[in-house]
Amino acid sequence: MSGHLTIAGLGPGPDAQVTPEVTAALAAASDIVGYGPYVARVAPSGAARHASDNRVELERARLALDLAAAGGRVVVVSSGDPGVFAMAAAVFEAVADHPARNTIAIDVLPGITAMLAAAARIGAPLGHDFCAINLSDNLKPWPLIERRLQLAAEADFAMGLYNPRSRARPAQFARALDILRAACGPARPIVFARAVGSADEAIAITDLGAATPEMADMRTVVLVGSSTTQRVGRWLYTPRSAG
Amino acid sequence: MSGHLTIAGLGPGPDAQVTPEVTAALAAASDIVGYGPYVARVAPSGAARHASDNRVELERARLALDLAAAGGRVVVVSSGDPGVFAMAAAVFEAVADHPARNTIAIDVLPGITAMLAAAARIGAPLGHDFCAINLSDNLKPWPLIERRLQLAAEADFAMGLYNPRSRARPAQFARALDILRAACGPARPIVFARAVGSADEAIAITDLGAATPEMADMRTVVLVGSSTTQRVGRWLYTPRSAG
Repeated sequence: MSGHLTIAGLGPGPDAQVTPEVTAALAAASDIVGYGPYVARVAPSGAARHASDNRVELERARLALDLAAAGGRVVVVSSGDPGVFAMAAAVFEAVADHPARNTIAIDVLPGITAMLAAAARIGAPLGHDFCAINLSDNLKPWPLIERRLQLAAEADFAMGLYNPRSRARPAQFARALDILRAACGPARPIVFARAVGSADEAIAITDLGAATPEMADMRTVVLVGSSTTQRVGRWLYTPRSAG
Repeated sequence: MSGHLTIAGLGPGPDAQVTPEVTAALAAASDIVGYGPYVARVAPSGAARHASDNRVELERARLALDLAAAGGRVVVVSSGDPGVFAMAAAVFEAVADHPARNTIAIDVLPGITAMLAAAARIGAPLGHDFCAINLSDNLKPWPLIERRLQLAAEADFAMGLYNPRSRARPAQFARALDILRAACGPARPIVFARAVGSADEAIAITDLGAATPEMADMRTVVLVGSSTTQRVGRWLYTPRSAG
């Protein structure tokens, strides 16, 4: 007999932003697999918990597939949406090489991704065409990231920037801000949204001219407006019309 | 006394994908405002229902603000996420001109947007850098859309394309496919995801060489892979690494 693997998005943090289908999958799980802090967000149940460190996504994905192949009802948890810079891609990378790949039923349950949770807190800054770029160069060359930022600015996308800055690469986010400032000008709105939905939430709206690298850390998602993004009161929005 | 305006995302369709905070806001509402089919998705309650036609977003936003200014507890409903090609931007456009703009409390509750719901159904096609483009030229010039498609292909983004095709503009989506085929080649995966989460759901995975405009209609969201997007079994995913 073979089992079932669900890849579930926990949303940005609050239980009130976890979808009912994810809550139901967690309640029915025999095993919960994920990065430690995300596993810790799941309410206690009879499920076995397999918490792992960051940056071991493929090992975690293989463990989840092994547990499912042995007949488990396994849920892999991600923060946000599992399909956005999270565990779903890692699981399918592991599926490609797994001996039981044809016998495990897999489903993916979406969640509220950080960029859209942050946007909702300040209005509708991604209300028109936008892009999402992961600024970490762990798995891609930094020049590709610079090129994407440049082309995204040329396309006049609003932007959601994930993993803007870590201790291992302090200089790169400064370079990203330089590229954006040169391409979009100093008046362009930028938002630093840290730990959205948690007790530590801190959101700052400023502009590229005043933005400094220290405004971001590992828990921050950064939003950048398009040329049409506007402020009204404490809100920021990108109108539906453009050009 | 002034009231409260909540802009809430109902997700793509299933109740199991509506967040608890949205369900709670709907249960507490005095007034529910939205496009008719979305208002019809809300469970019956004591709230007054204000259903309107498509393409009257600003009028609908003004009505919601008027009801809130009169002391109501108003919920504006959108399908998907209200911040993604939906009502949140329209409300903030209306806020900018509304006499009661400083006395109405506003909040935005995110939802599962169509592109991410569709992605989850077929794997993780947006698992790396991606963009979202609205192909309707109701509110922006068509040449800007062509330019964004071209630059998005140059940036090697995976793509979510909203409102790909309507009866009013049958030729444009054919042109969009031509641009993508020229820029990305005929082997690039493309997904036509219609009515995701509903009883009418129909999802087709093909490639740009075989894609035809008739595969999309008003209820379809289209996903296009990046150069690294791969198939494994019935799944499509974009690996976390690139370049």
